[in-house]
Amino acid sequence: MAENGKKLVEQITSMDEDFAKWYTDIVKKADLIDYSSVKGCMIIRPYGYAIWENIQKILDERFKATGVENVYMPMFIPESLLTKEKEHVEGFAPEVAWVTMGGSERLTERLCVRPTSETLFCEHYANIVKSYRDLPKVYNQWCSVVRWEKTTRPFLRSREFLWQEGHTMHRTAEEAEERTVQMLNLYGDFFEGDLAMPVLRGQKTDKEKFAGARATYTVEALMHDGKALQGGTSHNFGNGFAEAFGIRFLDSDNTLKYPHQTSWGVSTRIIGGIIMTHGDDSGLVLPPAVAPIQVVIIPIQQQKEGVLDEAYRIADTLKAAGVRVKVDDSDQSPGWKFSEYEMKGVPLRLELGPRDLANRTCVVVRRDNREKSFVAIDDVVEAVQSGMKALRDALYEKALKNREDRTYTADTLEELTEIAANKSGYIRAMWCGDLACELKLKETADVTSRCMPFGAEAIGDRCVCCGREAHKLVYWGKAY
Amino acid sequence: MAENGKKLVEQITSMDEDFAKWYTDIVKKADLIDYSSVKGCMIIRPYGYAIWENIQKILDERFKATGVENVYMPMFIPESLLTKEKEHVEGFAPEVAWVTMGGSERLTERLCVRPTSETLFCEHYANIVKSYRDLPKVYNQWCSVVRWEKTTRPFLRSREFLWQEGHTMHRTAEEAEERTVQMLNLYGDFFEGDLAMPVLRGQKTDKEKFAGARATYTVEALMHDGKALQGGTSHNFGNGFAEAFGIRFLDSDNTLKYPHQTSWGVSTRIIGGIIMTHGDDSGLVLPPAVAPIQVVIIPIQQQKEGVLDEAYRIADTLKAAGVRVKVDDSDQSPGWKFSEYEMKGVPLRLELGPRDLANRTCVVVRRDNREKSFVAIDDVVEAVQSGMKALRDALYEKALKNREDRTYTADTLEELTEIAANKSGYIRAMWCGDLACELKLKETADVTSRCMPFGAEAIGDRCVCCGREAHKLVYWGKAY
Repeated sequence: MAENGKKLVEQITSMDEDFAKWYTDIVKKADLIDYSSVKGCMIIRPYGYAIWENIQKILDERFKATGVENVYMPMFIPESLLTKEKEHVEGFAPEVAWVTMGGSERLTERLCVRPTSETLFCEHYANIVKSYRDLPKVYNQWCSVVRWEKTTRPFLRSREFLWQEGHTMHRTAEEAEERTVQMLNLYGDFFEGDLAMPVLRGQKTDKEKFAGARATYTVEALMHDGKALQGGTSHNFGNGFAEAFGIRFLDSDNTLKYPHQTSWGVSTRIIGGIIMTHGDDSGLVLPPAVAPIQVVIIPIQQQKEGVLDEAYRIADTLKAAGVRVKVDDSDQSPGWKFSEYEMKGVPLRLELGPRDLANRTCVVVRRDNREKSFVAIDDVVEAVQSGMKALRDALYEKALKNREDRTYTADTLEELTEIAANKSGYIRAMWCGDLACELKLKETADVTSRCMPFGAEAIGDRCVCCGREAHKLVYWGKAY
Repeated sequence: MAENGKKLVEQITSMDEDFAKWYTDIVKKADLIDYSSVKGCMIIRPYGYAIWENIQKILDERFKATGVENVYMPMFIPESLLTKEKEHVEGFAPEVAWVTMGGSERLTERLCVRPTSETLFCEHYANIVKSYRDLPKVYNQWCSVVRWEKTTRPFLRSREFLWQEGHTMHRTAEEAEERTVQMLNLYGDFFEGDLAMPVLRGQKTDKEKFAGARATYTVEALMHDGKALQGGTSHNFGNGFAEAFGIRFLDSDNTLKYPHQTSWGVSTRIIGGIIMTHGDDSGLVLPPAVAPIQVVIIPIQQQKEGVLDEAYRIADTLKAAGVRVKVDDSDQSPGWKFSEYEMKGVPLRLELGPRDLANRTCVVVRRDNREKSFVAIDDVVEAVQSGMKALRDALYEKALKNREDRTYTADTLEELTEIAANKSGYIRAMWCGDLACELKLKETADVTSRCMPFGAEAIGDRCVCCGREAHKLVYWGKAY
């Protein structure tokens, strides 16, 4: 705090110098989060939460367009319910928070705070799914979940986080598989189109799949530093949970059958991904689709007659066109404001001073490359819309180039280990499908399998680890 | 379940016979909620949750128009933080759920699941409020909270419920008081305008106010059975919490001061209020502003050529006009559908058969009084809009008349006790302000003070209980 009580725009650590510290600086200095005395949890501040609200709004509309209905399940799961499906409880029990007291009384059965809600949805579906006419059920909830992590980082890994979890039940295995892939592609299109983050779409290995799932599909993004981030996942459970929970329906052929189940989710982790994909040494860079402020108008010599009036008029025009716009008419200097909104990643800055007024023009500056355009005030809506589109496209291209530059290929264990030791990025290599090889790569090169991309072409026929026959192309890497 | 797997529309208990059972029948049979193995918690099903989403959308927009910003605080509160403000912890500690284990480890300090978040907001404000330039802070969050109630009822009282909680900090006492009243009136206007529920706006007695507040304002609604429901509350905390949490700001006169604080909230309880205000023996009756389906189109002889096509065309026209509409083209009979959507409280039903087609008309039926209108298909948008408005107005008038019919006046303790024993509703009576009298009315007549309405005129100058001088007009009653 400066002595007059105004915040100064402070320098942040350079990303090349210390990427982790750069990240932490941004989440704090762009006012995205604050810490509290609740260890491992974070406060999402208005600017950070507004990004999440924009993400929610876009996804929720698209979910509903595919027939999704929102519900709300209890946040607690009785221990006996959590343990009904064996693999599932093994995956989650070590990292749940347990409620053992209600008021001053000890509970007869302890309750965990949901780490995910498959078990609750299954119990409910067992109540309401009786006939093929009751299918499909395509439910989703927006809520918070808790996983008792040891090491936490804002947005990327915290003990409590916000997410959506879709849970569906289907009459046939084919329909469940279709829904699993449909939701994965919905996520993929959102990441690429709206967040300007190129993603690999593919399948997880058995080791990396969700506890209890038959198959887990993923969208994987590569961060600026070459580490991978799992952006969203979609799981096909087959009828394993349905069997464990006794969910059966009478089909039209008059026989009782188990329905087929999926679940899929994305979380506030996305915000961490945006930061690490697009941010730079001046701060955050936000894709326009989710930016709380898409255009900030900064008046120059705002005390001069007409400047503020015109700024407000332009803001009204942009608002009417559906643009999220803010006029900063505070008494800070224009230079301070430039830095502040660069830190906050506002896609476009619009400068307007007395001289511009006389010419009926203004200056539009792009956040990503600081490119300036001189724009007639009458054309401001079009200039802003095309500026946002150009910025989104440039962000995408830059992130794609980063991924291409950081994607390596290995044929042997030695090559892979060598690359993993000296480079940061994806390593493409063939894999025989054996868990032992996957574990060995982790041990030898400290990489995990990130994804087996859909429709990827083989780059050989021998496992990078054991040399036996291999048909699976895997992207290996280090991940957040 | 019927043998062919279709649900039949079942009878519900009559409201005059058993109001409590009628209520429970509706929440189940209108598909609003389901129970689960989590005792005291409920599953909010798609139809119930869609009502909540409509409530959220309307309120969230109005909040933001007054400068509110949304945030998200952790769901856990360390015990030491909860206990910082004395009255607050006394009010809440007996009814919180405690997390004592994370994974397999015992926590060094137990965490409660938030029953409300004043303490977390205060801790955060202590971090970010330093100067008068940082004020006001006008934050809100939409989340779930937990109170370990012994007796629970869907929507009205459950161990977990959904709500919004606004928490604000202000430079002056006057500004805090203004915000407290502003939010109460925002709630009042929402209840009356959108939910068609007349409310009393006024102040709570000290006994009934929020733990730690200086003053609590309330909107109180009267249910069909004459019991009161607290619809929403708005609290002025003065600077008590600020002192307890050491929140101080440097004012422009260069002195350190404590800011003044408010909080305000409404919850899913509202849905219980809607049911008990407007419902009837055929089921739910929803005010159009929050109805998930505002108009259901029921084709008659839908197999006849052109009927379904015209039904879809009308639906498209209504959708384009912003109406939430559904065509039920299932193979159930029209009679079954009539009952089903009456149970679900859909405001308007539109019937369309082959004869209507020939005349280019359709029939619009109001849910509340079953009044039929024959409407030219070309005028359907206007007919639907005016039909919804008329229904909202009629619901309001009916509820207002119920309140007027059930509002009594008492001058003496004997009168009050007599009314309380034989009638169900509000009893207006003067009160001296003494807690002893309030407790005695509870003991003698089993009523609590509901509200001291703003600007109410005195109806005497003696306390109904002790006969001493009295200036406060109180509405007494039994409450949910």
